[in-house]
Amino acid sequence: MPDALHTDVGGSVGPVTTQHVTLFDDVHPLELESGHRLAPVEVAYETYGELDANGSNAVIICHALTGDAHAAGYHGDPLRAGWWDNFIGPGKPVDTRRLFVVCANLLGGCMGTTGPSSINPETGEPYGLRFPLFTVGDLVEVHRALMRHLGVTRLRAAIGGSLGGMQVLHWAMEFPDELGAAVLVCATSRLSAQNIAFSAVAREAIMRDPNFHGGDYQRIGVRPDAGLGVARMMAHITYLSEEGMREKFGRRLQNGTTPRFGFDVDFQVESYLHHQGEVFLRRFDANSYLYLTRAMDYFDPFGDMVAAGPKLEALRTPFLVVSFDSDWRFDTAHSREIVQVLAAHRVPVTFREITSPHGHDSFLLVIPEYHRTVANFLRRAGAEPGFTDAAGI
Amino acid sequence: MPDALHTDVGGSVGPVTTQHVTLFDDVHPLELESGHRLAPVEVAYETYGELDANGSNAVIICHALTGDAHAAGYHGDPLRAGWWDNFIGPGKPVDTRRLFVVCANLLGGCMGTTGPSSINPETGEPYGLRFPLFTVGDLVEVHRALMRHLGVTRLRAAIGGSLGGMQVLHWAMEFPDELGAAVLVCATSRLSAQNIAFSAVAREAIMRDPNFHGGDYQRIGVRPDAGLGVARMMAHITYLSEEGMREKFGRRLQNGTTPRFGFDVDFQVESYLHHQGEVFLRRFDANSYLYLTRAMDYFDPFGDMVAAGPKLEALRTPFLVVSFDSDWRFDTAHSREIVQVLAAHRVPVTFREITSPHGHDSFLLVIPEYHRTVANFLRRAGAEPGFTDAAGI
Repeated sequence: MPDALHTDVGGSVGPVTTQHVTLFDDVHPLELESGHRLAPVEVAYETYGELDANGSNAVIICHALTGDAHAAGYHGDPLRAGWWDNFIGPGKPVDTRRLFVVCANLLGGCMGTTGPSSINPETGEPYGLRFPLFTVGDLVEVHRALMRHLGVTRLRAAIGGSLGGMQVLHWAMEFPDELGAAVLVCATSRLSAQNIAFSAVAREAIMRDPNFHGGDYQRIGVRPDAGLGVARMMAHITYLSEEGMREKFGRRLQNGTTPRFGFDVDFQVESYLHHQGEVFLRRFDANSYLYLTRAMDYFDPFGDMVAAGPKLEALRTPFLVVSFDSDWRFDTAHSREIVQVLAAHRVPVTFREITSPHGHDSFLLVIPEYHRTVANFLRRAGAEPGFTDAAGI
Repeated sequence: MPDALHTDVGGSVGPVTTQHVTLFDDVHPLELESGHRLAPVEVAYETYGELDANGSNAVIICHALTGDAHAAGYHGDPLRAGWWDNFIGPGKPVDTRRLFVVCANLLGGCMGTTGPSSINPETGEPYGLRFPLFTVGDLVEVHRALMRHLGVTRLRAAIGGSLGGMQVLHWAMEFPDELGAAVLVCATSRLSAQNIAFSAVAREAIMRDPNFHGGDYQRIGVRPDAGLGVARMMAHITYLSEEGMREKFGRRLQNGTTPRFGFDVDFQVESYLHHQGEVFLRRFDANSYLYLTRAMDYFDPFGDMVAAGPKLEALRTPFLVVSFDSDWRFDTAHSREIVQVLAAHRVPVTFREITSPHGHDSFLLVIPEYHRTVANFLRRAGAEPGFTDAAGI
């Protein structure tokens, strides 16, 4: 993506530290939707800004499939900032001068929060596929426990892109009194057949890797890097748009203008995907990829309207739903479906489709109309009375 | 795809046999564009209908990436017909009552024509990656040699879908006097960055399979089935449309309505892709997949207009270019680009975008408007004088 898109306005939250807390233990285990009990559950999180005296200015950032707790500021090197640093900070859309911002690695992740790569206390070895299946709702339960730990009884807003937005939607529907506002960016209420298909093939690539060993690769001391790399390369194609790829790479060759005519990397787009696959291996766990993509597959809060109807009737949290016109991972139709269902139940909802050539990844970029839209919505969420009728978490 | 789409009109060409001929040998090797010489080159082909007395009614069918010579009729079981049997036969768009139709497995394939799975005479073992790189132009040279062998000096028409259409485009540009008409269905003059990206990831999946052994898996007696299966599953997503997948699978589960919550196949779309991946392994060779996709990547006949311009100026072969509105593998923009370049050089070109929910695979289906369009064009090609100014192959 062009560097200009990373040039943000506003300041940095500065140096930050990832914190760790054990939120569930043997005495108080996490009860999953499946009925399974999980303990201990440790959570990695970061906070930016200060919680005000009456605890009314907290915002949670729910990250996407491969994100982590380090959303803003920097660790060590000021030039290497968190993944949403252009969005969170003093003077930025999520303005840390007036908001207390929390971002946590989600359950099942591999960046400090308990997941399949954590040690299973029953065996003393990594869980692998013995980690229990969990749902988007379970991700939210862990976030809620973190909020209680931080003394936050109600959120000014919950904000999430992609899988993050799915968490926000679930949270709003199940605990409408806990959210002052909900911001969903390029999210969906349910994966399409094509979405599921891409995730299924990514999982196949991982599970067919001979180093996968039924998920026990850690114990054996190997990694299914070949499969995980292929999964990431494929997924990455779905995060960019056709148009964005054409602008960025076209058919340009990696080295000069003479094709090398072989199976090694030759086109720039090949080199880019290769690099994305390699970098990803350093920071992500294959089993986490399986669990989190599967949680997305099964998410479908509007699937049973007999159950969903009363929840939606009780929901008065204002929503901002944002899509990008070149996103084909979760295209505008996904957002529009959410908007239509919410509006049909008289939930206050603002919808904006933003023009951007950068596909699904647009939500991570500085796109002025997008940032302005979120900033304005969050200011309203803090100022208007309708946003402040409190309830407990 | 709905069975109705396979219900064609017209009859069958009946039982057929695939024939084999050695077109190049040590005395007359195939000279590839790279300068490499290849011998022997055996070609598998089928013919349907009868060549007329003056050899003026021949049509070649150029198949796509994973096709073969068995386009029409049947081997053994009348219920299991060739891959384009709904398109070729008495009374069908490619009408064998008046046309002599030839379909050959292409160079580099694995269905009877010499390719990387053939025996390298220098070593007595399969070529593997010692098979020379070849281009779309080289595929056409082998087809031309087959036509000479069959006594055909000029084709009434060349017809191809996808990679088949790319062969037809090359043929027309390089040997305009040899083609009475050119039919390109969901083809492209050059792959986009996204197209190349998908092919690159498919190749990665194959080459990272530990059973690939640098392409020497045959010699070792194993197969990179895991990787080839993943490549096929991914590619298959790009052959269907989002809309087609929604209609066919939606979010339906494989068994009943209760999710099984695991990593095994659960959604119908997963089961379908799994099946496609498995079936493909029985009939395709991983090295052929690498070579043929790479030939597609490099194809770009309009890339150097200094070279292409005079060829296009000399080209008076009437073209029919057909795209499908739900095809996102080679979408209508790809076809439109071909049409615009041809029209700019006063090549007679008819363009039709056909409405179909079935994506790239539409070209294999019975879509009445599509079949009518091709049938009418081919009738014109036989009847109008402009189509008959002959020249030699």
